[in-house]
Amino acid sequence: MLHLKALTDARWFAQVDEHLDEILIDHAHCEKKAAGTAMNLIFHYVENIELCREMTEIVNEELEHFHMVIELLERRGIPFRRMKPSQYGSKLHELVRKSEPEKAVDRLLVAGLIEARSCERFQALASHVDDPELAEFYHSLFESEARHHSTYTRLAGHFASEEVVEQRLEELYEAEAAIISVGEPMARMHS
Amino acid sequence: MLHLKALTDARWFAQVDEHLDEILIDHAHCEKKAAGTAMNLIFHYVENIELCREMTEIVNEELEHFHMVIELLERRGIPFRRMKPSQYGSKLHELVRKSEPEKAVDRLLVAGLIEARSCERFQALASHVDDPELAEFYHSLFESEARHHSTYTRLAGHFASEEVVEQRLEELYEAEAAIISVGEPMARMHS
Repeated sequence: MLHLKALTDARWFAQVDEHLDEILIDHAHCEKKAAGTAMNLIFHYVENIELCREMTEIVNEELEHFHMVIELLERRGIPFRRMKPSQYGSKLHELVRKSEPEKAVDRLLVAGLIEARSCERFQALASHVDDPELAEFYHSLFESEARHHSTYTRLAGHFASEEVVEQRLEELYEAEAAIISVGEPMARMHS
Repeated sequence: MLHLKALTDARWFAQVDEHLDEILIDHAHCEKKAAGTAMNLIFHYVENIELCREMTEIVNEELEHFHMVIELLERRGIPFRRMKPSQYGSKLHELVRKSEPEKAVDRLLVAGLIEARSCERFQALASHVDDPELAEFYHSLFESEARHHSTYTRLAGHFASEEVVEQRLEELYEAEAAIISVGEPMARMHS
């Protein structure tokens, strides 16, 4: 279902092993940002009732996940704090075209790509970590990220033909693979 | 419980009678904006976990109300559309002080005041309209608006003493009454 062009490699797993607490804190912020993205889409495309319905479900689920991560941090005695975000999201958002309807297509596809990558990273984490609670937690989030990816990609079809959406998605998959492969020195969910 | 300094008067009821459809459409936008306000507060005060929990509930409820209004519009064959908003919210937001922690106090109290006014207007509408479905609908929303008002006012107490919050709330109640009493020519939920 996911067609990511680059799989998570040893570089990121080394970051996870060295800075798991930072990855966990960043994860909470990622869930919050995912909720914010869906809310922004409601504001920008409010006439599209189907989009608003789907985004409402995503807002609710992402905020629920945000609180699940916060509770996990609390149980582990890891203080939640603000952190410099990775550049991953902003680099992807730079690819969004400026005029409609291309802008809508790109915003939705980029949001869907971030869900796809999160899905891949959660699956990778679930297999990688020794901690059974953490493995189970990431496993439990996997399904919803995959579903959100499908929702975003399907909604992009409200703003362009299926062929145009597929072609643009292919381009964005390539760009995303280049961004994630370079990575970042700070340990983050999408570093 | 609500200490509004000016009750809704005949001027607004005349707007309701003449432009009920616009009031209904504006109501949907108000619910969306209320959800957006609560989401913004999560982003700005993310270290405050209690605030984030309360705001999450408000986001969920306001988005649910947004869809309830959209469905009401659909049942009545009123096309949902973008509309120029009233100046009420922006006039209140001008009163928010610029530096923390006063900014947090004011943002929360202003959000709470808007809930209080919505509560009062819903109650006024429920008594005023002849339409039983509409009266029942506004009646059903009354309780949550009152609850949100209390939540916002209580959370302001995270950023200042009870005495300081009460004094500032009193000032803002006065300002709100002046804004709503002047009103606006366009028919809106807060005109």
